Amino acid sequence: MTGFAVAVWVDGHLSMLDQRVLPHEVISRNYYSAEETAQGIKDMVVRGAPAIGCAAAFGVAVEAFRIAKQGVPASWPAAMAPGLKLLEESRPTAVNLRWALERMRPLLTTTPPEEVPQRLLDEAQAILREDHEACMQIGRHGARVLPDTGERPITIMTHCNAGALATGGVYGTALGVVRGAVDLGRKVRVIACETRPFLQGARLTAWELLQDGIATTLITDNMAAHLMSRGVIDCVIVGSDRVAANGDAANKIGTLGHAICARRYDIPFLVAAPISTIDLQAADGSHIPIEERPASEVTHLGGKRIAAPDVAVHNPAFDVTPAELITWFVSEKGVIAEPTREKISALISS
Amino acid sequence: MTGFAVAVWVDGHLSMLDQRVLPHEVISRNYYSAEETAQGIKDMVVRGAPAIGCAAAFGVAVEAFRIAKQGVPASWPAAMAPGLKLLEESRPTAVNLRWALERMRPLLTTTPPEEVPQRLLDEAQAILREDHEACMQIGRHGARVLPDTGERPITIMTHCNAGALATGGVYGTALGVVRGAVDLGRKVRVIACETRPFLQGARLTAWELLQDGIATTLITDNMAAHLMSRGVIDCVIVGSDRVAANGDAANKIGTLGHAICARRYDIPFLVAAPISTIDLQAADGSHIPIEERPASEVTHLGGKRIAAPDVAVHNPAFDVTPAELITWFVSEKGVIAEPTREKISALISS
Repeated sequence: MTGFAVAVWVDGHLSMLDQRVLPHEVISRNYYSAEETAQGIKDMVVRGAPAIGCAAAFGVAVEAFRIAKQGVPASWPAAMAPGLKLLEESRPTAVNLRWALERMRPLLTTTPPEEVPQRLLDEAQAILREDHEACMQIGRHGARVLPDTGERPITIMTHCNAGALATGGVYGTALGVVRGAVDLGRKVRVIACETRPFLQGARLTAWELLQDGIATTLITDNMAAHLMSRGVIDCVIVGSDRVAANGDAANKIGTLGHAICARRYDIPFLVAAPISTIDLQAADGSHIPIEERPASEVTHLGGKRIAAPDVAVHNPAFDVTPAELITWFVSEKGVIAEPTREKISALISS
Repeated sequence: MTGFAVAVWVDGHLSMLDQRVLPHEVISRNYYSAEETAQGIKDMVVRGAPAIGCAAAFGVAVEAFRIAKQGVPASWPAAMAPGLKLLEESRPTAVNLRWALERMRPLLTTTPPEEVPQRLLDEAQAILREDHEACMQIGRHGARVLPDTGERPITIMTHCNAGALATGGVYGTALGVVRGAVDLGRKVRVIACETRPFLQGARLTAWELLQDGIATTLITDNMAAHLMSRGVIDCVIVGSDRVAANGDAANKIGTLGHAICARRYDIPFLVAAPISTIDLQAADGSHIPIEERPASEVTHLGGKRIAAPDVAVHNPAFDVTPAELITWFVSEKGVIAEPTREKISALISS
């Protein structure tokens, strides 16, 4: 099993693998404050909802250590407020970010002031550890509901990267299910959609799966429907950045189209995500904010212009797949078929 | 109205605008034989089914002039056979290519031998002229069936480039309908899908529409479903590379996914193509050959690797949209709603 230093604590600071340049370059960068961490999240040095949660937690810890160098502040909540705000606003869609911050925040008042930095770091490390465990469980639960293909290898299509690189560095969510199937002894082939404009599929998913020796074929996003129509795809598995209370799931732009096409061809569509991705405050998908990213992500690649000059651009980073198109929702607490408000609620309390 | 020298006769040879480097560079290249022309078609110097038909026709003419330089051959059909074969095999999906060659071929035997080169050139020029006229008619017919949006501008989504650049150099098929709507005085906004891997939408459609002052917004292909789900798209218009006898339509990879999503959101889906695109020998879409193109088109961009090393690639250049997903088929002879075998047959004989 391959592990990655997606967001880890090294020598008293946060270190993140720069996912913008993977796999062409493998570079880790250091972060010494919440401000730097927030900028790293915004610039997509780290991406993937659970990974952003881990990074933000370490960002809180590193900020506290930075502040403590000037002495213990009169009020930890006041001293930390600007950094927490920057982290919270760094990406709008992934709810794991907010979830991680909400888990860190109470410690500012419930911990003896001089122990706050270490306590925050312990909590960030706990979030990372729990993420590893959740991914393993997601993989185990998800693998059990994959369609039976008999002796034939199962072909799983995925979009974006919901792998080790999108989580705490091991297993992943959607790719956790792929690895869970491999662990069960199944022969697995993965079709990775390249995932424009940021190419997480072409760069990250293909790279991390090939390192585990899992057969992976790359396609452009717009080839998915064709392969589905030809019976090539046995199921689709994606991650999620925020699941609403009714089961609607926001995920990387392009997911919705895949879900609609999968339904047409009766192909099971799985969403794999930890419980921390569920946002009960969002009644349904219409309450999930969709981040609009810079036009240059679409018009340029590797610093070079690939589109006609002066054209206007729309660049929403996520879309929302309605619950009715989701065959299985897979979490560390188990799976639910065709998610509804009631089933989501029962899963959380289970 | 903007016109382009997509495939034109200049100074005794064929000249084609190199669409691989547009719009970053505007370069025309010269072709002096069928072999060179076939290679140009294969390499996608020229692309778009009707444009390929025009280019192939000029390729036949230039081959005859080349041969005639050595004197009139004993048998024109024998002398021309190798060149015709190369042209025919240059691209497998666009039927307009075969259609143009079948129109040229009889002239080899029905024309006095010394007049063959000029007669072939006259026919190629006629094909080009007729293409211009067909595009204007397609635009006129298609514009009439666009959804009524009252005072609100109509937002039309298109995929790939079925514009002037995909045809004889003016108006286009799908973009002919866009221009037809503008000619009727409607306010039109176009959403251009970038069209991976070759980026015909980002490079060609955006470029040619902006030259006509038509408001154009670029998106990645995987954003289409999201925009449809938010009510942004009033209709979808695409071209076609081959229409089967039952109305199934092959077009640039990604078209099928758009058609499936459009149906889910009850958005009219129009296919605009000249009658020469209809292949009665293909009973339905399953009989249309789908070209597999080189992996490097997906893994590299501008000569630079953009995907993980060693990943396998699938690169089908086209997909087939079943007739039942097509709201209107638009041709120069008029429109048909929800194409069927009977309606297609009646349209051709009309």
